[in-house]
Amino acid sequence: MKKHNFSAGPSILPKSVIEKSAKGILNINNSNLSLIEISHRSKDFVEIMDNATSLALELLNLQNKGYKALFLQGGASMQFLMTAYNLLENKAGYLNTGVWSTKALKEAKLFGEAVEIASSKDKNFNYIPKGYSIDSDLDYFHITTNNTIFGTQIKEIPDTSVNLVCDMSSDIFSRDIDFSKFGLIYAGAQKNMGPAGTTLVIIKEDILGKVSRVIPSMLDYRTHIEKESMFNTPPVFAVYTSMLTLEWLKQNGGIKSIEKKNIQKSNFLYNAIDSNELFSGFAKKEDRSLMNVTFNLTNQEHKEHFDKLCNDANINGVNGHRSVGGYRASIYNALDLNSVNVLIEVMNELKRII
Amino acid sequence: MKKHNFSAGPSILPKSVIEKSAKGILNINNSNLSLIEISHRSKDFVEIMDNATSLALELLNLQNKGYKALFLQGGASMQFLMTAYNLLENKAGYLNTGVWSTKALKEAKLFGEAVEIASSKDKNFNYIPKGYSIDSDLDYFHITTNNTIFGTQIKEIPDTSVNLVCDMSSDIFSRDIDFSKFGLIYAGAQKNMGPAGTTLVIIKEDILGKVSRVIPSMLDYRTHIEKESMFNTPPVFAVYTSMLTLEWLKQNGGIKSIEKKNIQKSNFLYNAIDSNELFSGFAKKEDRSLMNVTFNLTNQEHKEHFDKLCNDANINGVNGHRSVGGYRASIYNALDLNSVNVLIEVMNELKRII
Repeated sequence: MKKHNFSAGPSILPKSVIEKSAKGILNINNSNLSLIEISHRSKDFVEIMDNATSLALELLNLQNKGYKALFLQGGASMQFLMTAYNLLENKAGYLNTGVWSTKALKEAKLFGEAVEIASSKDKNFNYIPKGYSIDSDLDYFHITTNNTIFGTQIKEIPDTSVNLVCDMSSDIFSRDIDFSKFGLIYAGAQKNMGPAGTTLVIIKEDILGKVSRVIPSMLDYRTHIEKESMFNTPPVFAVYTSMLTLEWLKQNGGIKSIEKKNIQKSNFLYNAIDSNELFSGFAKKEDRSLMNVTFNLTNQEHKEHFDKLCNDANINGVNGHRSVGGYRASIYNALDLNSVNVLIEVMNELKRII
Repeated sequence: MKKHNFSAGPSILPKSVIEKSAKGILNINNSNLSLIEISHRSKDFVEIMDNATSLALELLNLQNKGYKALFLQGGASMQFLMTAYNLLENKAGYLNTGVWSTKALKEAKLFGEAVEIASSKDKNFNYIPKGYSIDSDLDYFHITTNNTIFGTQIKEIPDTSVNLVCDMSSDIFSRDIDFSKFGLIYAGAQKNMGPAGTTLVIIKEDILGKVSRVIPSMLDYRTHIEKESMFNTPPVFAVYTSMLTLEWLKQNGGIKSIEKKNIQKSNFLYNAIDSNELFSGFAKKEDRSLMNVTFNLTNQEHKEHFDKLCNDANINGVNGHRSVGGYRASIYNALDLNSVNVLIEVMNELKRII
């Protein structure tokens, strides 16, 4: 009874990763010790951390370009304040494309002048603002590339001389963009990278050290760079399982290859929505996310019926977020085309029987 | 080939916990989904979080006494700054008993006046200072009950009208003390409670809200109390495995019962050290830890020999911390008497063959 897991996050991971992860819990590297019982200073774990950070930079094509990869704790929400703590001296700009950008902006305001450069709040964030200008005097410009709740995604990364800071939690490692455009990228692991419990931070090192405030050790990126994510005990399991997922991605052809699959999956699903008058998409077509497909029934009377069909087909996690309603199918890297086809079949089935 | 795991942390966990934890990774509650693939808002996980927080309060005998239990991220090191951020308005006092208290004091100084009330640094922290006085005008007094690196432990919790704040990372759930003496207790999970990746914080709610500064959401305990540790995605695996460990402790008679075993294990080991002229204990006898037994060879020429005997006996993780040297046997709750006996046997064997 295979489940088709469309959860928005924590979300589906490759089956081989789940199996290796469970095996590591029982016995890591044939040591007769559990992954979670060994010292983080042991050779076994230091290798895991090194591997995970190297793979992250390699997959993003950021090796030898002045970037460091860190595995921290606290989720993207901790990064909302850490980015501002470390980078905001005079003024920062934020593109407000949803709930998470709004929260990021709110936290930044505690540390200095943080302004909303553009927003799509007027239409409940169903599109990505365009045509705004980014003043060159900003300390940084913050964007959220993919908006999990609303199902929108920034297709063109802005060109600017200002440091780009990005919450890439829900689309990192899913599509081939020029990651060297960014000064700092952060991403909670629990979408395309691993289980909840760690946050990947990719930093161009030369953007640090420019603010005058004193930063507590744990909130200072320089601490974690200097200690290679081992200033204190790292979240061992989450880092290990993220490493396994990054290995899986590399073995499956890396970002270019997975992007093709992601485009195919999302095309199939958006086509199914657009060609079926029982459904309507939420996000503006040109801004539709490759990761989170948001849609609704055109007639709410069919809700019970559709929910039952989904349930009978072992479809899990398609309820929309409360601020949008309707449905959201999250089709991250590890979700295979077969699961998308099952959902499409259920949508077609509803049409046949109505 | 069973390993005898004396690691200081991450450290040994009960075998049954390891097995259930691995099983949950493969299939949680017979859902055909992995623990790490389900939404943290799902019924399955909300129950896990509720269970974990209830068990923590129950085992510490703190239910219905105005306390909340939180599962956060970032380790004790994040609590060094969070305690000060939330509680330090005018002046705080710190008892300096080792590396971790020194770090806690350092971070607190960024937020206000934080003073060292007493210290044992003069003797490389091999004892617990006593006879100091705690001014009643302090916002709080911070102690570290067990000093993992040095193998010392506070036996008498100070009596004071001031809020007691405590880093209990390496001895929480190991001995029966009056936990209601504390305003705030924090503990990284990776000793007696679970895997690395979550930090238990126990707060008496009425000590909060007394400082004038604005606190970023993620660093404000009130945020996490209001959202029941679900302000953002929690570290699902670490919380689950901590819950399993707390269940194991409850099933095995709770803290009173485990304390007896811990006293027995430590007595046996300290007696073996004291009765063998090849070894000497590091910590002052009256302050010896029940959790971390620090000792050294009286003659370093035997090091290679002793290390080989340990290795041959499948003893893991007994190297001392670099700031103390020698050996450290961490004998946390999950380590059974048999492993202690194996170590004692190796110490006796060295004596026989020298």
